[in-house]
Parts: sequence; structure tokens; C-alpha cells
Amino acid sequence: MLRFVGKKAKNLIRNSCVLQRLSPFPFQSSSAFLSTFNNNPSSSSDSNSLMAHNYSQSPVTLDTINPKIKKCQYAVRGEIVTLAQNLQQELLQKPGSHPFDEIIYCNIGNPHSLGQQPITFFREVLALCDHPAILDKSETQGLFSADSIERAFQILDQIPSRATGAYSHSQGIKGLRDTIAAGIEVRDGFPANPNDIFLTDGASPAVHMMMQLLISSESDGIFCPIPQYPLYSASIALHGGTLVRYYLDEATGWGLEVSELKNQLEKARSQGTNVRALVVINPGNPTGQVLSEENQREIVEFCKKEGLVLLADEVYQENVYVPDKQFHSFKKVARGMGYGEKDISLVSFQSVSKGYYGECGKRGGYMEVTGFSPEIREQIYKVASVNLCSNISGQILASLVMSPPKVGDESYESYFAEKDGILTSMARRAKTLEAALNSLEGVTCNRAEGAMYLFPCIQLPQKAIKAAEAAHTAPDAFYCHKLLNATGVVVVPGSGFGQVPGTWHFRCTILPQEDRIPAIVERLTKFHKEFMDEFRD
Amino acid sequence: MLRFVGKKAKNLIRNSCVLQRLSPFPFQSSSAFLSTFNNNPSSSSDSNSLMAHNYSQSPVTLDTINPKIKKCQYAVRGEIVTLAQNLQQELLQKPGSHPFDEIIYCNIGNPHSLGQQPITFFREVLALCDHPAILDKSETQGLFSADSIERAFQILDQIPSRATGAYSHSQGIKGLRDTIAAGIEVRDGFPANPNDIFLTDGASPAVHMMMQLLISSESDGIFCPIPQYPLYSASIALHGGTLVRYYLDEATGWGLEVSELKNQLEKARSQGTNVRALVVINPGNPTGQVLSEENQREIVEFCKKEGLVLLADEVYQENVYVPDKQFHSFKKVARGMGYGEKDISLVSFQSVSKGYYGECGKRGGYMEVTGFSPEIREQIYKVASVNLCSNISGQILASLVMSPPKVGDESYESYFAEKDGILTSMARRAKTLEAALNSLEGVTCNRAEGAMYLFPCIQLPQKAIKAAEAAHTAPDAFYCHKLLNATGVVVVPGSGFGQVPGTWHFRCTILPQEDRIPAIVERLTKFHKEFMDEFRD
Repeated sequence: MLRFVGKKAKNLIRNSCVLQRLSPFPFQSSSAFLSTFNNNPSSSSDSNSLMAHNYSQSPVTLDTINPKIKKCQYAVRGEIVTLAQNLQQELLQKPGSHPFDEIIYCNIGNPHSLGQQPITFFREVLALCDHPAILDKSETQGLFSADSIERAFQILDQIPSRATGAYSHSQGIKGLRDTIAAGIEVRDGFPANPNDIFLTDGASPAVHMMMQLLISSESDGIFCPIPQYPLYSASIALHGGTLVRYYLDEATGWGLEVSELKNQLEKARSQGTNVRALVVINPGNPTGQVLSEENQREIVEFCKKEGLVLLADEVYQENVYVPDKQFHSFKKVARGMGYGEKDISLVSFQSVSKGYYGECGKRGGYMEVTGFSPEIREQIYKVASVNLCSNISGQILASLVMSPPKVGDESYESYFAEKDGILTSMARRAKTLEAALNSLEGVTCNRAEGAMYLFPCIQLPQKAIKAAEAAHTAPDAFYCHKLLNATGVVVVPGSGFGQVPGTWHFRCTILPQEDRIPAIVERLTKFHKEFMDEFRD
Repeated sequence: MLRFVGKKAKNLIRNSCVLQRLSPFPFQSSSAFLSTFNNNPSSSSDSNSLMAHNYSQSPVTLDTINPKIKKCQYAVRGEIVTLAQNLQQELLQKPGSHPFDEIIYCNIGNPHSLGQQPITFFREVLALCDHPAILDKSETQGLFSADSIERAFQILDQIPSRATGAYSHSQGIKGLRDTIAAGIEVRDGFPANPNDIFLTDGASPAVHMMMQLLISSESDGIFCPIPQYPLYSASIALHGGTLVRYYLDEATGWGLEVSELKNQLEKARSQGTNVRALVVINPGNPTGQVLSEENQREIVEFCKKEGLVLLADEVYQENVYVPDKQFHSFKKVARGMGYGEKDISLVSFQSVSKGYYGECGKRGGYMEVTGFSPEIREQIYKVASVNLCSNISGQILASLVMSPPKVGDESYESYFAEKDGILTSMARRAKTLEAALNSLEGVTCNRAEGAMYLFPCIQLPQKAIKAAEAAHTAPDAFYCHKLLNATGVVVVPGSGFGQVPGTWHFRCTILPQEDRIPAIVERLTKFHKEFMDEFRD
């Protein structure tokens, strides 16, 4: 099934060589998406004949499109996923054609796709806000909890004309921002201002908005952890900036050392890069570490001293699995140090896609923007206004996750049981997978303190590395492709996230449902043993 | 209430002068958004003290942000809306403080905000998909129509794992794209391919995606009608391209003359601009005309001959109010001329925000991308994948508007009555407002054949133009501000859309509910008479 042949292979090598010098992502190539449009057996003849058309007259060619788009890569939905989709089609058409019955997508933090159930209270409120006509019908009392009905009424009262079908204020409905700000205050113990909240269609558009604001040209740099979540590298590439790397220290559980920040900043500046902002992902993606408060204080101090905007990706704030660690928002840490509006520019990103809710399909999220002058905030508002507003269901859900049922509410017990069930199960799954990975020959895996991922390091034998070279692919991608073909398990090569040169990793989510974990561990263990038997030096 | 004083006024003049040379939008200035963050009386002290902070140490200033953002303007949510929001707050705090009781927002095509009700069937299906747990409860039969329950089951069956909370394929759920493609086939009588559909959070992100693809630098031009919907000028500015204007001919009901296209193209090319695409908005925004099929054929021929991508904004395809005009998609027209995939690159934009449904808050829409090579399509897919997917409720709604209830379905009669009620009422409102505007001294208004707007031309007396100059504002903005302050009616100055230099217009939606129209006409007529009495030469 591997398709590394001919021209495509040549492209892969070329891109791999070029990128290995320029970026931390040696594997991804633009051909990763090639088969997206012809892998579906049900597509019409019009589609299947696409390839046969002669587009030589087309006004749009690879040479005439925006080169920033060509440069942008996004591994999480890259080539390995396309290969997996092809396998899935083949399994549908020819059951039994592969040594597994199904594809298990561990490439992306998409909990509901793997069977996680939504939180009932949240969905009740969303359904009632979608169809308020049923709110005062008697049957509704039988179908919905009393507090979901009450909450839906409250929310509708906050919406001008009670119109969930209208564009809202471009930052989001004011009443929902009030609720979110109140939730942040409860979380942090420091004031939050609803006018600092910008509701967005998930965290990704918020990140893009900040990149668009901060990047004027290639000489503007954004400091990113390596390994990083490739949204950052993709967004920086799309906006034409420079990704400035700082490496997390795998030996100390993916520690973030300020000395490393200092060294890399100095180096970037000496090369003429104007570093504008520092991205910190806490809990870490793909690395799963939870920063200590002390470490966060150092980071805040560093940003303040060096004049960097702190872009805090805090979308996994509810996903902490170890008793010795706790999530602290960077705003809480900064305010606790006595730093206010004028001292530090800080943006915190939150999403409804993660946490125990995992509502990826709702595309809800917000950014809390503090420490920017009114002139700059009006520019951010203007960019938000060009897209009018984010989707109202996502806005409502963002308010719900920041203000869930409380003790005494009718839904509280079932809500708490659902939440606790998901989080404790995630913690168990993380532990089981971590232990399984650590038991494999040549594999070491740091503990998943938080987030939804494991990022094990594989010491690949030289023979495997040579085989990968011969197959014109990166060694970690070689391993992941073999794993997919043998087991149906989809993981993402570390090269998609960046890693210390010469080390190899992959990212695997902890999201398959618990009854599936033993089989996954068994398949993974068997595959790894066979792989090592084949390639052991 | 007008706040044209001091530094702000100077900025306005400066921007106005610069922009009058560079762009068709002489009025908009970046200070339009200034008061967004301090106009809310309920904001916390943290917010109110924003102005008092000293941001001199801030790493982000107007001089260090992306200049493309500063250049970008979006009149539809610009200064006049901020002024209106201020007035609304004042009315809340001090009822009776203005000569009107409420603000009527005619600045934006946002039907539900003015009382339009959602289509029941659509909302039923959305609510059931949000909370599928109630689908097989007996009470549900009493609350929801049988066909909405059936449709929800169908849609859930099309979603992998039936998970409406999961990220979907980055182009949108395949089954929903199948439904949309089938709807396009019924509409056009020509095949449509689900793999050509990209579902998006409304049409705006789709437009941005195409601009991002086509614009590499300032030398890339996008051909836009003048007047235009300012999403286009904003998006072109954000992506650093050049807006190349072609003027619609007001004298012939905003006719689109190919001779004008030829002249302007030649001129742009002689100035070194590489014109990549032609934007056509049909039915027109803000101009309301519906193109004839003959005219569309000329446009297709022109794009094919000149190697331009045809970007067809067809979001008002259901909004046609006159019996002598009909909507034809550009794809239908092109295919009817015998032009297929290889002959013309054509993108059609559709949205759930317009039509009779007007579901702006749902942020649903799609683009149908035809006539691009597989290599280019994979680049478009890659950009879509960086944002993972559009919101699932919006995706579902996009499938519903392209496949509403059919004769014989339980909901059909109520659905048809709701749809017909909205569209025939819109047609009546358009006619009434058009007649009222045409009856005003010095005002001429073309007929609203389609879309949701009227765009009357006002012959302003010299005395008014001089008064506007003295107030450091554009004459049409001067008129609109006076109108707002006298009546509470918000309309957008023509300068926000572009107009032939020396002519003045405003855009007014036809969306206030019918029982409000007589009062609006009365207020408008009274204001205009008084304005003319004050300024008549």
C-alpha cells in the first residue's frame, strides 16, 4: 500500500532535504494531499475523470498561487491520514483484505469520533436554544432537565431579540462573554473583563488572528516550542513569518528552560529576526507536560523583560491527570506576580474541543486578550468584524463549559458523573498506554501529565533508518506507515511536530475507548516486536 | 452626538484624502472602532480604566502591527454602527433622551435580528442532531414533525460514529456534501460533484480562502464591482493584493457591461497588475440587480478568454423579487455554453445566512470549486485542513437549505407557507421602500430585483457637501449620521461600498418587519424633507 514511487518519491526527498535545513518538519510534502480527491469510490465520473482533464490552459497553477500556501504544512491531517482513509475504503470494499478490521484514528484529538459521549446538559441547552419554540411545551419537561430549560431561557434572554439565528456582536454575545468572564474569575481568583473576550470558531481562528496581527513579513518571528502543535507552524507559514524554535527538554519531562529561551532569542535576534511573541502550550501538545507555577512565573518574567507577547494555548486546561500537577492560567500567574494590564501583553486561548467535553464539531472557543492598547484592540476587533461573528451554538457552548451545572442544580450529579467518568478514564488510558509504550524495546515515553497525547521516543535501529532512506521517507514516518499497515492504528510521525535532529517520535492520542485499549496495546506490542526483529542491527 | 473632534477628525481627513486617491472608500478610518471597548456601561472598572493605562512599554503598537490590517476596512460594521450602539446605550440609560425609542439596524443583512422567524423544519432537525438522545423518546413525536425526526436519523447515519461533536472531513461531512451536490444538480440541471464542495463557516471564510490562494503580492489584482460588498475589499487588503475596480452602470439598473470590464482590465494590465480573478455578486450586493442569462454568458466568455478565475457570489440565489428575472448559477450558464472542467475556473459561494432562511448566526455555507487542477485543489484542501472543519450545525443547515422538505413530506405545507410568507413579504417591503425613496427630493433608487438591499443615489445640495467638509466627513456619511441621530435608523454610507466619484448613496436593508415599514418610511421622509430644507442651495 505504500505509494512512494516515481516523481512523488523524488519530491519527497527534495522537500525532505530542503525542509530539514529550513524547518523542523523534514517529512511533510505537498503531495501529502494528492490522493484526497480520487480516493473515494462513490465519487461521480466527473470526479474520476479529473485526472484526465488537461489543465494546461488553467489560470491557476502551482507556480502562480501564493507561495505561502505551498510552504504551509499540517501533519495532523497529512499524508498518513490520507493513507488511512484509503485503507478504510479498501476494508469497506474488501473486508478481510488487511490484517485488521478497522482503522483506529489516534492521529487527532477528536474524542467523539472514537465513541466519547457528549455531556448531556450541554447538549440539552444547545438543542433548546436551536429550537426555542418547544421551550414552553409540556412534553419538553419530560425530555429535558429543569435546569437545562432554565439555562436556555437565561441564554435567550441575553441574546438581542432572542435570535440565535442572527449575527452577534463580532466579539460574541455580550451576556455570554459576561458568563465566560465570571467563569475565568472563579478559575483564577482575579478579575476578568467581558470586553477582553473574543469568541471564535474554535481556537484555531483565534491563533490565526493573532498571527495576522503580529506578522508583517519574514523578519517577524514567533517563538514556538519544539515539539509543537503544527497549527502554529502552519499559521506562521500562511502569514509569511518566521518560526523561531525553542526546544523542550525531553530528559526532564519536556521541561521548558528559560536558559534555552534566552539562547534561542539571542540567536534569532543576531540573525535579524524581530521576535514578537512566545507561544506556550500548557498542558503540552504533543508532549503532555503540565508546567509548574514557578516555571510559569519565569516565563512571564522573560516575556515582560524581552517585550514579547505571551500567546498561551490553554485549551487543555481541564485535562490534567496527575495529582502532583495542577493547571494555572498564565493570567492568574501574571496577576499573582502583581503584573497588570500595562505590564504584559497576554492572550489566552480556550476551546470547546478539548477538556472533558471534547466538542470538536461545534467549533467554539475564545481568546482573552489583555495588555494591549485600545488602538490595537480596535484593530483586532476590526479583523473579527470582517468575518461578522463566530457561530452562536459554539458561543453558547463556550459559555457552558466555563459555567457548568453547580452543586444543587438538577443536572449536577449526572453532569459530574459524566465529567468524572471521562476524565478518570482518560487518566487510566494515558497510564496504560504509557506503560505499554515504555515496555517496548528502544521506546521511552514521558508521562502524560495532561492534554490528550503521548509522544514516545523510538530509538530506531540503523537498519530501519537505512530502509526508510531507501523508501525515500523519514524514519519516523516509515515506522508510522508500517504500524498503520500492520495494525490499522493511525499515529502522526514526530517530524510533523518537530524534534531534536536525530531523534524519532510519534504522537498517539489516549482517546480510544477503554474497552479497545487492550487490543490496541496487543497489536502495537506485536507490531513493534516484529519491526525490531526485522530491523534490529 | 457626532464626535468629530480634535485628533480623530484630523485622522479622518488624512485618511479620507489618502484613501480617495487609492481606493473607492474615502470615508472609513481606523478610528471607526475606537469606542467599541468603552461604550458599555456595565463593563468592569478594569475596562473603564483601560484608557488610563500607560501602554508606552507595550511590545505591540500601531507602528509594529501588520500594515495590511491597518489598511483593511469593513464599513458594514464600521463607525456608524458604533455610534448607533452608543445611542442604544443612551436610550437604555435615559429613555426619552432621543427623538426615537429604538435603533433600527438597516445596516446589515441580518434578518433574524429584526424579527424574522427561523424555518421550523430546519430548527427541528438541528435540535434533534444536537441532542440525538431524545430521538427515540415518545415525547419527541409530540414535539417534532415526523419528517424532521426522519431527516435527523438520515443525517446522523451519514456522520461517522453518528458523532455531531466530532471534527469532520475538512471539506465537510461526505453525506452532507452528497446532499448539497444533489441539490445543485436539481437547481442547475447539470452534474455536481460532492468532492467539489467545501463546507465553510459562512461564505466569508470561503472568500478569504480563495483570496489567500490567488494573492501573492500587491501586483496580484482581483476585479471587483463598484459598488461592492466590502468583504471583498477587506479580504483583498488583508491578503495584500490590489482591488481592480469595474463600475456597474447605475443608469441601466446597475448593469454589468463587458466593455467596461475590457477597459478596466486593459488599464490594470498596463499598470503592471496581474489580474487573477473576477468577482461577480449576483443578485447584487449592495445594488440588488439580477443579471440576465445573456449577460452571464458574456461574463463567462470574458473570463475564459482573459484567463480569469470567476468568483461567483451567489449567496442571494433565493432572493429574487421580480417576475421578469430569475437566478441562474454561473456554473449552469457555463455548462450550458458547453464549457466544462477544463475550460473555466469557477467558484460559487453559497451561505445559510441569506435566502428566506437568513440563519446568519449558524455560520454555514459552502463553495463549489470547479475547473482547478488536482494539484491546486489539494492546496485548497490543505488550507481547509489547517482549521480542521467548519461547524457541524452549519454543515447540516447547508444541506437542509439545498434539500428542503418536498411535496408530500409532513412539513412541506408549513415549510412552504413560512418560506413563501418571508419571500413575498420581502418583495413587498422592497417595493414599498423603493417607492418611498424615489418619492424623496433628489433621490433616485433602482429597483431591488433581488438580494436584501436598496442603494439609492442622493443628489446632495452643495450646502450639505460643504457642511460635511466642515464636519470633516464624507457627504454621504454626513447624511447617514444625521439620519441616525434624527430617526434611529442605521444605514451604511455608499462610500463604504465604493461609488462613482461625486455621487452619493447609502445602503439600506429591506429587512425590518412589515408592520414597522410605514413608521420607517414616515421618519425617513420627514428627516429627508428637514435635511433638504436645511441644506437646499
